[in-house]
Amino acid sequence: MVGAAMAMDLAAEADLEVTVADRDADRLQTLAARFGVATVQADLGDPDRLRKLAGQADVILGALSSVIGLQSLQAVLEAGRDYVDISFMPEDPTTLHALAQERGACAVVDCGVAPGLSNMLCGFAAASMQPCEKLRIFVGGLPAERSWPYEYRAGFAPSDVIEEYVRPARQVENGKVVVYPALSGVERLEFPDLGTLEAFHTDGLRSLIQSLEVPDMQEKTMRYPGHAALMESFRETGLFSPKEIQLPSGDKVTPLEMTSTLMFPKWEFQPGEVDITVLRVQAQGVSQGRQIQWQWDLHDRMDPTTGFRSMSRTTAFPATAMARLLLSKKWHRPGVHPPEIPAQETGVMEEILTALKARGISIRKQEQTLE
Amino acid sequence: MVGAAMAMDLAAEADLEVTVADRDADRLQTLAARFGVATVQADLGDPDRLRKLAGQADVILGALSSVIGLQSLQAVLEAGRDYVDISFMPEDPTTLHALAQERGACAVVDCGVAPGLSNMLCGFAAASMQPCEKLRIFVGGLPAERSWPYEYRAGFAPSDVIEEYVRPARQVENGKVVVYPALSGVERLEFPDLGTLEAFHTDGLRSLIQSLEVPDMQEKTMRYPGHAALMESFRETGLFSPKEIQLPSGDKVTPLEMTSTLMFPKWEFQPGEVDITVLRVQAQGVSQGRQIQWQWDLHDRMDPTTGFRSMSRTTAFPATAMARLLLSKKWHRPGVHPPEIPAQETGVMEEILTALKARGISIRKQEQTLE
Repeated sequence: MVGAAMAMDLAAEADLEVTVADRDADRLQTLAARFGVATVQADLGDPDRLRKLAGQADVILGALSSVIGLQSLQAVLEAGRDYVDISFMPEDPTTLHALAQERGACAVVDCGVAPGLSNMLCGFAAASMQPCEKLRIFVGGLPAERSWPYEYRAGFAPSDVIEEYVRPARQVENGKVVVYPALSGVERLEFPDLGTLEAFHTDGLRSLIQSLEVPDMQEKTMRYPGHAALMESFRETGLFSPKEIQLPSGDKVTPLEMTSTLMFPKWEFQPGEVDITVLRVQAQGVSQGRQIQWQWDLHDRMDPTTGFRSMSRTTAFPATAMARLLLSKKWHRPGVHPPEIPAQETGVMEEILTALKARGISIRKQEQTLE
Repeated sequence: MVGAAMAMDLAAEADLEVTVADRDADRLQTLAARFGVATVQADLGDPDRLRKLAGQADVILGALSSVIGLQSLQAVLEAGRDYVDISFMPEDPTTLHALAQERGACAVVDCGVAPGLSNMLCGFAAASMQPCEKLRIFVGGLPAERSWPYEYRAGFAPSDVIEEYVRPARQVENGKVVVYPALSGVERLEFPDLGTLEAFHTDGLRSLIQSLEVPDMQEKTMRYPGHAALMESFRETGLFSPKEIQLPSGDKVTPLEMTSTLMFPKWEFQPGEVDITVLRVQAQGVSQGRQIQWQWDLHDRMDPTTGFRSMSRTTAFPATAMARLLLSKKWHRPGVHPPEIPAQETGVMEEILTALKARGISIRKQEQTLE
């Protein structure tokens, strides 16, 4: 869903040679025919294979399952190559920071839309304000058409969505990490052309908790109103539990497995179904002696020309923009970094936003004086 | 839950000798100690045993599982005895009408609160108006304390509640049976002291569809607002499906079984928890040349003195009142009858309402001229 959009984007550039590696020969053929990329059929679940392939490239983009995220990062770093990754791995990728430094390789992980672009905007704000006091991230991937009862389709692995609804959400208040139940703290936000969305706590700050010294940071996921209450009812009934239970018949079953089997088909985007990505990042702090708020708004829809869903585009293009930065050495620092690190350097944010705008993803920035 | 309340009620009468039959010796001991009733330990799932026991009594009250409802009715009729039953059997009990007539026995089935009292009020209205044009039944058994997310406890077998949420609801419009999905047609009703409830289609008309010639009849179940939408979401997700599905792991599971296992413990009344019964019956038609509406409202709560829940009381006392009628022969007609049949006879409704009032269940009747 994302790798193809990355391939399209990079292949459009005359001075780049793009090779796509995938297990699926049919998909490779489609990509080769459509975008003129070279292809290699390979099982990237095999780190040795990935390491050898990586050695042949100047920069690698990873659009792999979260399950093999960490091992793939390691394979690329062992090959001494630069890497931009969107795999959303559960492990801490900075455990490989020393390896990257040793090999002179620069890796930027979590480099999609959120995490990704959201981190960059936060990093930019943190570096630009004196000081930045408060950060808010609101993000949602939604179907344009709202169908009862979920009014939701999963743009990425639905099991990762459930994981987001279950995992306690770490936020930062008064410089300390506080934990909220996922799906709690529902608030309503208004968006022009889109109406009312609800936003609730999810565990999306990730690297920002460590990397930025902002005393008040929150990340929330957005859905059409009512979704959180329904999902909380499911969760509190036990339907998302990964713990096997015994039924009166004696059968054993894992509720999460059964619920997923019933629910996920209803969460699938239908062919041609339009999706929407909404991202709002707010930063409060002091700039030139004034108390201000910056608000960035991204509102993107499926591209009817290419057929790429908004989720694919908004995830792929921050990564390809970052890959270009690494290639051009406009920013390059050996190590494993979340996206807020490069975004704190002069010129990087502008470069990324310009690249996104050229790809039809425009971000509106508003400044407001708070006093 | 109901049989004990029946025993208490009948044992309080000096001229009656009451015997309770049950499989459970401990329960029998408790009842004997508490109400001074005679007891017989017996498995009433055995029709032969029931037939022999029934032969020793003047009238039998049945508070048995719906699964053995029909066979128990048959056993009592074969013994030639009168019967008042609240078992809510899925089969049509009038298939035993001829047997009852042949033995000179009179059975009144579905004789609780709804079905039961609701049928009687409908039957009374149908017989009293010239003609009765419209009947509405709204009924709900609810916990006094509303706990998220269901705001519901099951006063009777929770599997029967799910069955109510799944089975298409037959209503009568323009003299014809029309079918609605269960849980649909949500409307809001206001009750003094209770606030707003929602009412939705359930398949509760049962015998009324055949027995009354009223062209417009509807039965709806009431819950606290939001319950129907939540249960419909569960149902449409497939969580109430009785059809086995295969999971990706290869395991097979029946969604209804798993959902029940997770959900029913959350639907249990806690010891001492107060329940509420709300019944509203509306009848429209012509009386003495005027277009009028009668509305009966029953609003009952758990009795703190006896500890009997409202559901137990409101189900047991229409049955004991009917049993007294049969014993006194104030009404007695060989056959198997739903409660709307006796209620059409002069004096019967008054007798029942007087008996309920004496037991603390008062029903408020309002008359309204519609023109």
